[in-house]
Amino acid sequence: MAAPRGIDHIALAVPDLDAATAFWRDIVGLREGAREVLEDQGVEVQMLYAGETRVELLRPLGPDTPVGRFLEKRGPGLHHLALAVEDCAGALRELTAAGAAALQEEPVPGAHGTRIAFLHPRSTGGVLLELVEGSGEPA
Amino acid sequence: MAAPRGIDHIALAVPDLDAATAFWRDIVGLREGAREVLEDQGVEVQMLYAGETRVELLRPLGPDTPVGRFLEKRGPGLHHLALAVEDCAGALRELTAAGAAALQEEPVPGAHGTRIAFLHPRSTGGVLLELVEGSGEPA
Repeated sequence: MAAPRGIDHIALAVPDLDAATAFWRDIVGLREGAREVLEDQGVEVQMLYAGETRVELLRPLGPDTPVGRFLEKRGPGLHHLALAVEDCAGALRELTAAGAAALQEEPVPGAHGTRIAFLHPRSTGGVLLELVEGSGEPA
Repeated sequence: MAAPRGIDHIALAVPDLDAATAFWRDIVGLREGAREVLEDQGVEVQMLYAGETRVELLRPLGPDTPVGRFLEKRGPGLHHLALAVEDCAGALRELTAAGAAALQEEPVPGAHGTRIAFLHPRSTGGVLLELVEGSGEPA
């Protein structure tokens, strides 16, 4: 696929969004961004900034959600890697043509007007990989 | 601690460095960087670039190494998150004073003249966290 613009964000699964936000903001020194509930994905998201790159904290809305099951199985920690791309649909087509397993056939709406798609870890060396088109900045 | 300059790199544990490099370079479109053996850390490292941020592939030099044990226990995938800091020793002191568990009492030499230190996942919400001082670029 065309070279990604960079890393859009790195996402962490957390059981307690307030405690995790306090740790990454007050102890590690990241800058606090927006908080948002994404019902479709079953998560509440807290954005933080490390320089130009974002760290995304994900709290599951319940145990029977993708992040809820991840926490149950693996515990809290690194959840997925998101690459910034110019053309999410095109990148998704190229990756699936090369054998990667997509979780969606077409990009879906992400936070703040982005278009996103996920690749299954089984086809990416164990990394849940997200493709993000758009800035992801609050309007 | 003082705000990190940004994300220095995200590291992935891989069983086969050539296969993983080919995937991230040829399929995902990252730019290939240097490859280096770090005997002290028991890994062979392949750097890749996603825009300004790096992705670091880690192949264990043997099963009885930190990354070897990680692969055995968790399988391949996201391994650690590295933040770029101005002062690794100072950041390490502040984090341990705030209760984080360091893997080293003082920073140790990393690749390409960097100074690095690791914080244990049990004190950082499940994230193996590295602090990196210096550019990490080959001289």
